[in-house]
Amino acid sequence: METQTRPAADPRDIYHGYDDGQTRILHTMVLTSDMERSLRFYVDGLGMKVLSDKFESPAFKVTALFVGYRGVNEGGSIIELVEPWENKGAHRHGEGYTHICIGVADREAMLVRLEAMGVECERRPLAVFVRDPDGYEFEIVQTRRG
Amino acid sequence: METQTRPAADPRDIYHGYDDGQTRILHTMVLTSDMERSLRFYVDGLGMKVLSDKFESPAFKVTALFVGYRGVNEGGSIIELVEPWENKGAHRHGEGYTHICIGVADREAMLVRLEAMGVECERRPLAVFVRDPDGYEFEIVQTRRG
Repeated sequence: METQTRPAADPRDIYHGYDDGQTRILHTMVLTSDMERSLRFYVDGLGMKVLSDKFESPAFKVTALFVGYRGVNEGGSIIELVEPWENKGAHRHGEGYTHICIGVADREAMLVRLEAMGVECERRPLAVFVRDPDGYEFEIVQTRRG
Repeated sequence: METQTRPAADPRDIYHGYDDGQTRILHTMVLTSDMERSLRFYVDGLGMKVLSDKFESPAFKVTALFVGYRGVNEGGSIIELVEPWENKGAHRHGEGYTHICIGVADREAMLVRLEAMGVECERRPLAVFVRDPDGYEFEIVQTRRG
């Protein structure tokens, strides 16, 4: 796992966010059937950082953890990975959710890294897609143009 | 619809993001069966801003538009609303996607506004959830504590 750029925060603080008076999106939640397997994809693959310690919730019967590119107080969009204690992997993806889109300066470098991990990268005519270990789709967009 | 705080940008610029050398999440995409109905929820209800003009994509046979709380160059998480030209509303939601989480300083004020619009707010024991017109679930978290 990557070195942290800042100490991992209490996930309950991340969950609630900080109060700056601004309404904003805090996180997108994604179910995982295997947290460690997912972390390899999100951290080693996509290059996100682990932003929190793991949090066990007996009330929800899940283990949760936050990942993202920027720290939670730096305005970035983050993902809450949630591993249920029962019926792991029983969820369906549906067609309504579609994907989360990642912007990266050098797309090919990311694809090469992902493919070296065994991740299948689908170079469609108009866009490139990869899937996390649970089958969630990520679109990879190159931000550097020209 | 709310007054724009900045001129609406070309959605293709938003799609690609700006290049600051940082890998980041660009947007989360959500399918809609009725763009105008969704905008009422996202803009008038949740208080997001329309960040782009509408974009017609004959290649994908969809109309798309970006909404969010912060401008696209201000580090915020944004949502791409996508209305397909065919088979509107035929998508399923699945159980894997779950929800997008919104942080707001005064949660009750938002719930009152949503309920006045006819949106059903589900005050569960541990969290509050609302649904957009297509049934996508949003968790509403109060960022101001104490």
